Amino acid sequence: MKFSSKVQKCGLSPMRKFHPYAVAAKAAGKSIYHLNIGQPDIETPPQLFEAVRGFQLPVLEYAPSPGIPELIDAIQKYYDDLGMHFEKDEILITTGGSEALQIVFNCILDEGDEILIPEPFYPNYNTMVSTCGASIRPVPTCPEEGYHYADRARIEAGINERTRAIVCTNPGNPTGCVLTPEEMRMMVDIAREHGLFIIGDEAYREFVYAGEPLQSLGEFADAAENVVVIDTVSKRFSACGARIGCIISRNRELLSHALKYCQARLSVATLDQVAAAALYDVGPEYFAAVREEYKRRRDTCVAKLKDIPGVVCACPRGAFYLMAKLPVDDADRFQQWLLTDFEDRRETVMFAPGESFYATPGRGKDEIRIAYVLKQADLERAMDLLALGIAAYNRR
Amino acid sequence: MKFSSKVQKCGLSPMRKFHPYAVAAKAAGKSIYHLNIGQPDIETPPQLFEAVRGFQLPVLEYAPSPGIPELIDAIQKYYDDLGMHFEKDEILITTGGSEALQIVFNCILDEGDEILIPEPFYPNYNTMVSTCGASIRPVPTCPEEGYHYADRARIEAGINERTRAIVCTNPGNPTGCVLTPEEMRMMVDIAREHGLFIIGDEAYREFVYAGEPLQSLGEFADAAENVVVIDTVSKRFSACGARIGCIISRNRELLSHALKYCQARLSVATLDQVAAAALYDVGPEYFAAVREEYKRRRDTCVAKLKDIPGVVCACPRGAFYLMAKLPVDDADRFQQWLLTDFEDRRETVMFAPGESFYATPGRGKDEIRIAYVLKQADLERAMDLLALGIAAYNRR
Repeated sequence: MKFSSKVQKCGLSPMRKFHPYAVAAKAAGKSIYHLNIGQPDIETPPQLFEAVRGFQLPVLEYAPSPGIPELIDAIQKYYDDLGMHFEKDEILITTGGSEALQIVFNCILDEGDEILIPEPFYPNYNTMVSTCGASIRPVPTCPEEGYHYADRARIEAGINERTRAIVCTNPGNPTGCVLTPEEMRMMVDIAREHGLFIIGDEAYREFVYAGEPLQSLGEFADAAENVVVIDTVSKRFSACGARIGCIISRNRELLSHALKYCQARLSVATLDQVAAAALYDVGPEYFAAVREEYKRRRDTCVAKLKDIPGVVCACPRGAFYLMAKLPVDDADRFQQWLLTDFEDRRETVMFAPGESFYATPGRGKDEIRIAYVLKQADLERAMDLLALGIAAYNRR
Repeated sequence: MKFSSKVQKCGLSPMRKFHPYAVAAKAAGKSIYHLNIGQPDIETPPQLFEAVRGFQLPVLEYAPSPGIPELIDAIQKYYDDLGMHFEKDEILITTGGSEALQIVFNCILDEGDEILIPEPFYPNYNTMVSTCGASIRPVPTCPEEGYHYADRARIEAGINERTRAIVCTNPGNPTGCVLTPEEMRMMVDIAREHGLFIIGDEAYREFVYAGEPLQSLGEFADAAENVVVIDTVSKRFSACGARIGCIISRNRELLSHALKYCQARLSVATLDQVAAAALYDVGPEYFAAVREEYKRRRDTCVAKLKDIPGVVCACPRGAFYLMAKLPVDDADRFQQWLLTDFEDRRETVMFAPGESFYATPGRGKDEIRIAYVLKQADLERAMDLLALGIAAYNRR
């Protein structure tokens, strides 16, 4: 049987290869600290569960294709409070930020097109772009510069006649990079000057640790045709399993194309939309507490990493990830060895090896992504295991 | 800004154009009976809401990309009870049957490929296939033959070197056609002989009205490489808003490609999966009662239609739709007129004009699809309004 050329260019999750080793390690009695996945441990606000429990209609009907009005209203108000206004029909509810990205990519990318993304980047962009027949052109960065990418010359060097869009994951997954207001302005200006979309994947907006105001590319109303914001409740409210995201844009043509996709898949889950709308009632004290918690974790990770000889790691300003360069030959091999050959008091640790975050072959081999989503004591122990592991690996 | 050639080939929902007329009619005090949408009015089993209310975990986490084990187990058991066995990893949970179809089409269709679908067909197949860069080749049928399509010569006439798959919507939307066991065998044999996928979109499996055993293309284990079953809880349990479907196949290569899509979008909504698993505890008395209700409605529709001079309508054997040929010049114009110029005791009626169910230009102009999803008294009144409308329209 023949399969599409597009799907054949895609790969399965690079973390899958460690799964059998992790299973074997657990079967052998080892505990594993998971720094490898972006699933927060923060409790989901009770408003979500209360809204679901309060649902009283006798039939669980399709929702309208663009989303339920209550949720669109809540999102509109959230952005109004941040100082930027969108009309209700400039917001399309999607099944997570993932579907929002898939729909936007499908609307703008043809066979052979390119999309500019600073690397290292969120690996699922690969499948999303490849299945459109397009490819990612990476904007190069390096660990020694803290993965800084907002450089006009570096961005413009990647633009050609096949380029359709620039993606800014801001705050960044996996790097934790946060753009300054001036850098955002410059990125938007580049997009305008070259007639490109600029897609802000802003899932981690609330997770900034230096008291910055919350940012969005949506602020730049003068780039109405160019700016697309991808948003989601997943990280904001620790509600990843709700699968509620949205596409926000002032580009009417894009919205009308995106609506075709929304109509073809009929609707987004009704109960989750009702629940997500209720989440927007959560007050600022929730975000302040969550931000404080993640900031402490980040500081723990960075301090512990700085104590390991040979590690390169800039202090990330946002999201709940950091990328670090390790003094090992191959982070992939090191991760496997940590599962098969290492233990300290019957414990070991997992992270995400860096290579899969890069499009450039050979890049990221000695880097890792750490998701600081464990409680303080566990995180400290996990970082100590990483230090012990590096030492033992290089001594073996 | 440039948009993808694929999305530009797609259209917005053809029903949208009637929306402003319907709004105006309602504003003018007219009530509208909706026979135009496939949203059942049957109550969702309480098991769904009880399962959601019983969810006790403090964090609403991502579910595993292939689906939660409880739901996969429930679906496996459901098929075991129907006499066909699938391994757990031959079932991938999706966001509704819609995502299941999108994923399968993306896995098998390249730019320029064709997929064979008997027409009239579910209009959303258009967007799903076009966005893969492929096109639908319709298998022609006619109202006078009850839209019968399972004819070897007619199917094979549509197969060429670009054909990748045959889609059987069985029971059929919009026609209500149900394949006999011999016809299913023949369709599967054609797919095997020509090296094609055969995709059974079986959303309406339970809705058959002559006491037939419940069918699935999954019965044909000898065509393991060819058969793909698309399933969903939407109609089975009147839970359209849950957006829970699945891909079922014994083709391991297809499953591994499909899993790439599942991983790229991370997961299906967690609460809805828990709720859907609970739905599979519903007993046979539920289905018997629902089937009885729809059978009565179908019989009402068919009897009323037979009383209207010039209508061609075969009695559908399944689903909750019927297609009918009306004695009007143009069903689209007739629908608009029903909203703008017609009323009987301040009431009118909506259906789905036939043209959008066809790929062949000009076909379906005098046909309509009726969804018999209204309670008995409303349905009778809606059908009477249709009859009055036809008479008045042709007298005008």
